[in-house]
Amino acid sequence: MAIRKVSTYLVDATEELPKKFIFCRVETDDGTVGWGEAYAIPCRERGIAEFVKGLGDMLLSLDDTSPQSFRNNVKDWYDNGHLSIDFSSAAGAIEIALWDIRGKQEGKPLCELLGPVLTRSIPLYANMESRKPDESIDQLVERCIAIKQHGFDAVKIYPMEHEPLDNAIEFVRRVRQAIGNETHLLLDFWALESPDDALQAAHEFAQFNPFWLEEPIAGERINEMAKIRRKVNMPIVTGERQSGLHHFRSVLDNEAADILNPDIIGVGGVQDMIEISRLAESYGVSISPHCWNSTLVGTAAMIHTIAVLPNAIIGEYFPHYEPFFAELGELHIDITSSIATIGDAPGLGVSMYEDALASHEYYSPENINSRYIR
Amino acid sequence: MAIRKVSTYLVDATEELPKKFIFCRVETDDGTVGWGEAYAIPCRERGIAEFVKGLGDMLLSLDDTSPQSFRNNVKDWYDNGHLSIDFSSAAGAIEIALWDIRGKQEGKPLCELLGPVLTRSIPLYANMESRKPDESIDQLVERCIAIKQHGFDAVKIYPMEHEPLDNAIEFVRRVRQAIGNETHLLLDFWALESPDDALQAAHEFAQFNPFWLEEPIAGERINEMAKIRRKVNMPIVTGERQSGLHHFRSVLDNEAADILNPDIIGVGGVQDMIEISRLAESYGVSISPHCWNSTLVGTAAMIHTIAVLPNAIIGEYFPHYEPFFAELGELHIDITSSIATIGDAPGLGVSMYEDALASHEYYSPENINSRYIR
Repeated sequence: MAIRKVSTYLVDATEELPKKFIFCRVETDDGTVGWGEAYAIPCRERGIAEFVKGLGDMLLSLDDTSPQSFRNNVKDWYDNGHLSIDFSSAAGAIEIALWDIRGKQEGKPLCELLGPVLTRSIPLYANMESRKPDESIDQLVERCIAIKQHGFDAVKIYPMEHEPLDNAIEFVRRVRQAIGNETHLLLDFWALESPDDALQAAHEFAQFNPFWLEEPIAGERINEMAKIRRKVNMPIVTGERQSGLHHFRSVLDNEAADILNPDIIGVGGVQDMIEISRLAESYGVSISPHCWNSTLVGTAAMIHTIAVLPNAIIGEYFPHYEPFFAELGELHIDITSSIATIGDAPGLGVSMYEDALASHEYYSPENINSRYIR
Repeated sequence: MAIRKVSTYLVDATEELPKKFIFCRVETDDGTVGWGEAYAIPCRERGIAEFVKGLGDMLLSLDDTSPQSFRNNVKDWYDNGHLSIDFSSAAGAIEIALWDIRGKQEGKPLCELLGPVLTRSIPLYANMESRKPDESIDQLVERCIAIKQHGFDAVKIYPMEHEPLDNAIEFVRRVRQAIGNETHLLLDFWALESPDDALQAAHEFAQFNPFWLEEPIAGERINEMAKIRRKVNMPIVTGERQSGLHHFRSVLDNEAADILNPDIIGVGGVQDMIEISRLAESYGVSISPHCWNSTLVGTAAMIHTIAVLPNAIIGEYFPHYEPFFAELGELHIDITSSIATIGDAPGLGVSMYEDALASHEYYSPENINSRYIR
């Protein structure tokens, strides 16, 4: 299967959404189009799009353009190069597009290509993205009530944006009251600077029976994360801003996490997520893929991957992104209440509307420059 | 001091040199021009140049354009973002250019701005870059003899590119014989995949009394690096492909290194190098800045920084890059034999020839796009 073209769409999601998005389109000689998405790290989207372009040129130079061969070539680059989530985010875009192509060519949903499918019903939690500027606690509580009525039985909030700690406690109390004890409450500290502050807050929030505590401090602070984990009585989640198997093995070796949440794209795509998950499983640690990506390509890749992971517990979802992405494409995976149900659509199960993508594009690197690759 | 413009030159160094280079030009409203250089990671130069561009826009938005203020703003981005050597490489380019501007405006060499100058005579080792394709061992040995005659008393080679191990041993033996026991011999394994292979080779090379063993395995493999360090009787060096203080603290906490060699640009520039060095000093660990950069801007930044670091032992230098960079600029720091001597030239002490830079440029991102910053 020869690749004809690799291109990107850098989409500005209007002022409604707090980030931009990078879609990747890979077209084969027989006209099959596969879709990928790069993990669009804020303020770095253009550089990541250039990485996609460079990796696209590398892909064009390969005789074997399977996802496995592409990944092996990326790893060779890594080994000669430098681990970076920016670069692995770009690699993830192409890797996922190649899986989409393979699924379409074989007429099978992606999950069936990845291994024995353990379930086609994938539980998701609603990220409430409570870091919205100018939103009052009242309004956020109203959104939590609405999302519960919409059927979600797990919600994630960011309590530490409400200072001082007393306000944060009051915020969590009100959300817990609003959603009831039967709804899972996920707390994300978004990497506090002080481990002591994180510990103190975690102890205060224990009364609200959180489902987990995510990123109490930065994920690179492995030894300190392990100390926090030993002292608090709730599952510790880390990994969304890191990539590279060695990092995750250090986290596991140092007993610093109960649950890893690497980003499905940020780590380099489906194969890296599976590799990290298998490693975590050998340590008795669970996986909950991070997915601060679109509700189209990125989310689809995450859902198919979770379907083959025995130690995956739940996936991330942004319900309030749906209206915007409904303009850009269609997800052929049913998401009702908290459950994504994988059907028979081949590949990722996404259709993308290219006119709409083009109309939202704010930057376009020229596509394909074979001189880029030495 | 207002900044008028930030721009880049992506330079292809002909086929003679194994990498490309990214220079950064920052111009103030009063016409002062400062020069920076990004750590140009192979295959990622365009993306890194886009990062420079984005950070340049950020710089233009600052009221306080001091190197310290710029770095604080970068750190704020990091804290909300994702640690990556690609991004810190780009940040390093601008940080260094801002130091150059400040030095020029105050009429002082950069080292005098950084703290008490401990020495103006900086020892350098010659990186022989033995990974040249198609070079025979005979030719490499000849180059080692020539560089010793040129006055260098420390050379670095890459023995593990010669397989099997017997060939590598023979290679090191010949280099040691050629340079004599009075010349320091630095061995770089360039991150072997197998820690066992690294250990076996290290034991074999001990007879040649190496000055250090660099990157026996990938720097992210901290626990395994510590095991290697406990088992071999030569100083272990690591850090060139990593960034972020937390990483280096983990290396130090786990007693995985005798010497850290972060890249002067890759870690984010002068201030990050100083911060990492101070931390290493508190653990009794030495510093040898990595500098796989030009013999102009990057090397000058490294030399000035070493001048204020009590625990720095030696800097990296590529003597065979000199002829190419003599076309692109001039270094107003005397490098004779193994010693760089800092004089009175203000700032970095480099002059760049813009016509020559432009003639070697192979890619130019448009400069300044204020919409890039949200």
